[in-house]
Order: sequence, then C-alpha cells, then structure tokens
Amino acid sequence: MDKQLLIECHARIKPFIHNTPVLTSRLIDEMVGAALFFKCENFQRMGAFKMRGAANAIMQLSEKQKQNGVVTHSSGNFAQALSLAAQSLGVRAYIVMPENAPQVKKNAVKGYGGQIIECEPTLEARERESKQIQEKYGATFIHPSNDDAVILGQGTACMELLGFHPDLDYVVTPVGGGGLIAGTALAAFYFGNECKTIGGEPFEVDDAYRSLQSGKIEQNSTSNTIADGLKTQLGNRNFPIIQKHVEEIIRVTEEEIVFAMQLIWERLKIVCEPSSAVALAAILTKKAKFSGKKVGVIVSGGNVDVGNLPFKRLG
Amino acid sequence: MDKQLLIECHARIKPFIHNTPVLTSRLIDEMVGAALFFKCENFQRMGAFKMRGAANAIMQLSEKQKQNGVVTHSSGNFAQALSLAAQSLGVRAYIVMPENAPQVKKNAVKGYGGQIIECEPTLEARERESKQIQEKYGATFIHPSNDDAVILGQGTACMELLGFHPDLDYVVTPVGGGGLIAGTALAAFYFGNECKTIGGEPFEVDDAYRSLQSGKIEQNSTSNTIADGLKTQLGNRNFPIIQKHVEEIIRVTEEEIVFAMQLIWERLKIVCEPSSAVALAAILTKKAKFSGKKVGVIVSGGNVDVGNLPFKRLG
Repeated sequence: MDKQLLIECHARIKPFIHNTPVLTSRLIDEMVGAALFFKCENFQRMGAFKMRGAANAIMQLSEKQKQNGVVTHSSGNFAQALSLAAQSLGVRAYIVMPENAPQVKKNAVKGYGGQIIECEPTLEARERESKQIQEKYGATFIHPSNDDAVILGQGTACMELLGFHPDLDYVVTPVGGGGLIAGTALAAFYFGNECKTIGGEPFEVDDAYRSLQSGKIEQNSTSNTIADGLKTQLGNRNFPIIQKHVEEIIRVTEEEIVFAMQLIWERLKIVCEPSSAVALAAILTKKAKFSGKKVGVIVSGGNVDVGNLPFKRLG
Repeated sequence: MDKQLLIECHARIKPFIHNTPVLTSRLIDEMVGAALFFKCENFQRMGAFKMRGAANAIMQLSEKQKQNGVVTHSSGNFAQALSLAAQSLGVRAYIVMPENAPQVKKNAVKGYGGQIIECEPTLEARERESKQIQEKYGATFIHPSNDDAVILGQGTACMELLGFHPDLDYVVTPVGGGGLIAGTALAAFYFGNECKTIGGEPFEVDDAYRSLQSGKIEQNSTSNTIADGLKTQLGNRNFPIIQKHVEEIIRVTEEEIVFAMQLIWERLKIVCEPSSAVALAAILTKKAKFSGKKVGVIVSGGNVDVGNLPFKRLG
C-alpha cells in the first residue's frame, strides 16, 4: 500500500471523523525525559480510532454492496464503529455478538443503529453466524483489523499527528489485532521524517511480540489482561506490514498498564481505556530508548466502565 | 467593575494561562434538548480555573509587594493555583493548610513551589496563622474568591467561551466561594448578547441560594457534599455582583451531581471534579428552562482522586 492510498483514504473519511486534539503534559515529559504528544482518539466519534477504519471500509464498497449492508463480529469498539459509520453513510450494519456480552455494549451498538445478532460465545459460533448473514442478506464482511481499507483508515490518526508535529522520532501505539499499528507504521514511513513505529503489548497477550520473533503469526494461550481491546491476534494482511515497518514491540506488565493509565487520567485529565495506556506504559518501561526524543503516542480510545476502575485510593 | 477591567485582565494573564478547549456532546445535547458548550477548565494549568484569578491577583501587586510574597489559606485548588502562579511570576507563595490535609494536596502545592505552613484544622487557626505570615514577611494576603482581582481573573474563562460562541443564551457555573460565578456574570453581562448567568449549587451547601433569597450572606450549617470545592461561602466583594447579575441559583441533590459527573466522564471522555459537575446537574434538573437554548457550561476543574470515585459499576 503506497502513500497515495493513505492520502485518498484521509480525504475520503474526513467528513465522517474528528481531527482529534493532541495533548501534552510537562510532568509526564519530565518523568520520561522526552517530549510526548498524545493523539487523543478517545475524543474520536464513538470514542475510539476504530471509527476511521470502519468509515473507510464502508466507503470503499460498491453501491450494490452498500445496499446489502455490512457485517462483523465484535463485542468491542469495532462493533460500535461499524454501526456508527454505517449509520452515517446510510448503510445497514449487522453485528454478531456473543449472547453474554455486557448489556452496556449491546446498548451502545443499538444506539448507533447497529442490528445485533446474538450467538454462543465461541469463535466458531461467531464465524458461522456471520457467514449466515453474508449468505442471507448478501452483506459484506468487514474484519476489525485484518483488512486493507481498515488498516489505511487507522493510519490516518498518525497522518494527522505528523501534520502537526512532522519531526517526531517515534510513534507508539498499543498492539491488538494489528490494524492500528500497521496503519500507523505506514503513515510514519510515508509522512514522517525517519519516524519509527513502536508497539506496546501486555506480557499476558504478547502474540505480536512472539510473531515478530518467530516470523509467523502466533496465538495467545492466556488472555488475563486489563487491556481487553488487545486480546486479538495479528492477521495475514497486517502482519507483513508490521514485520517490515515496526521497529520493536515492548511488553509491559499489568501494573505498568494501570500506572500509565492513572498518569493519563490524572495529568492529561482525560478518560482512556486500559488498552490505550499500554503505549505510554511501553515508553515508561524503556525510558532510555526515548530519552531526548519527540514521541507521538496514539491514545486509542476512551470507552471504559468508570464504575469499575483499577486505581488505588490516594493517601 | 467595568468591561475595560476585564479586557485588561485577560491581556495581562494570557501568557500564564491556557485558552482551554470547548467540547460538545451530541448525546448530552439530546438529553437536555439544548446545545451545550463545555468550557474545559479541567485542562487549565494546575487543573482548574483558579489559575486565572491567582495569576491576575499577583500581577496586580506592586514590585515591593511581589518581593515580599503572597499568602493564602486553602487546602484546595486555590492553594495550588497561587503556588503555580507565584512560581511562574518569580514570587514567593506561603500556603496555610490544616495539618490534617491529605498528603497528596500538600505534595501538589510543594510541586508547584508553594511553601506550606501547617496549622490546626479550624478557621480561627488558619486566619491567625496567615496574619502571622503577613506580619512576619510583609506578604500580601490573597483571598481565594472574595477579591476583585481574583473575580476578574475567573471571569476570563467566560470571556474566552463567548469569543468562540458569542450567542450563548445562558452560561452556567458551580457556586462555591462566589469568585467564579461573579466573574462569569460580569463577563456574560459585558461580552454576551443578553447572555444570562445561572449557578448550580448542592442542596447540602446551599448558602448562595439562601443568600439571594434573604439579601444577606448566609452560612452553611452542614457540608455533607461530594462537591468539596463548594463548601465555602460568599463574600462582600462578590455577593453584590451575584445579586445584580445572576438570574437564578439551581440546587441539586448528591445523586444528581454524581449522575452528571458520570455523564461528563463517559460522554466527553474528560476527568472533572464533582464540583464541576454541579453545573450540568443544574441544567439537567431544569431542562425546560434551557430547552432549545445555547448554553455555556464552565467545567471548573479536574483535580480528583481517581482511586476514590462515586460511580456505580455498569451491568
């Protein structure tokens, strides 16, 4: 995928997304010994960067495809993103969700006009159900992360960040299914000035770290992390981009994630998801690497249950 | 205090404050049936609007006064604001704090270069101690809310908001010591187009509501509210302004405050103090009044212990 595709993608989705603000914190900069620029995708429409890729994927469809709608299986942000993007574009969205998904997530999807199809909480059931929707309605399946149009869309956050700060040395993102980091790596490569892309990943779901080591897509055997958006694995579309353009994936502990998340909340005064904090946690874990550098940080989203937070009470 | 004083004040403090962003939420607008513009002073330096008044008060002093430093008694945001404003201006700040104030608040004041003088946790002890500092060092006492320079400084948030949205019908603020609402009311009067100022106040500390009823400054007999920044009472400098320029004070329950705060966190994705949420709570309590109107909301601050939040876990 080349530079021109990213430029066209950004021009295409611009009317349907926010150019989110970039925040800084003197105190966090002092802690790291670097200049950090937080691209706040928690302020994106529906509260996460996923809106970008979802909008681009739908806009790339033919008129005939749009008439038949789109389908995905997700219980997370992509379900909401595809619903809202589809609603904005006058397209029907079918969302296959496990029947035990939290009611609040079901309500969010419904609120954005998505049509929920419940299934058993297994990967097989989700895939079978979404196949049926494709056959029944002719709907087009959109994968949350392993799809070229989605990858390009996610890369536009980094494009916007580099538009304001063209001289970043690094850009750091969390790594889940690989769509965000692959798109970011492309944007950093084409629009940065030798800007390198780094991933942050929980030790508990370090499949991307191990995939880069082994040269093939690895799976997670555990998924015991607070960063619930990062439990998914890489795919054949994004993995080659990650192999080519991502310098390093830094792993972090659960304690490091919570610490970084609390810093973001208390110092930047913004609400972000645990998954988002993994990028800052990675930077804090390897301060020497970032010392004296200009570093972009993609704060990926802000959809979190504020009644169920991991923070400890202060003294 | 006239229009020119506000203009001069804003020009004076501009280099030392942030022109904070204004956020909106489609969902909150739908809930209220109005267009709300949230002026986010949680993103202000040190995390609250108090930075504005503190900077203005210090900048109005003579060179001789600046050399001798400033003193206040506060355990809240004004202590941090005066410390940081003084530090930015090369002035010494003495902060009289009750010895039982939380360590985190003492650390924040120290972090901004304030010099803490501890005293017994009574109003008498605080006033005696700050008198002694004035005598010993020749320091100038700056009141957190009942001071003309402070009132003017706090009014600049509303000036900035009206700069972006000149046609607001209402601007709503929380009411504590009266500095913010008095400054806001002056700004709305001079810079708005028939923009009316409304206060939000907890039933638990409804001294301002009762003061407007009785025509004299009333005190609180209880202080059992989560909005810990609003426990203070009005003063002789701000009360006449409030009497003249504030249309109404709307009282809210503790449940209404928590509900509004959760809405702000979950929908605007920002961290705000309970006191800040009182303004939105007031609007939600009297929706009919605001129906179809353009309403500014001053989100007063974001300094909160995220380990000790009132939110309920979602289903």
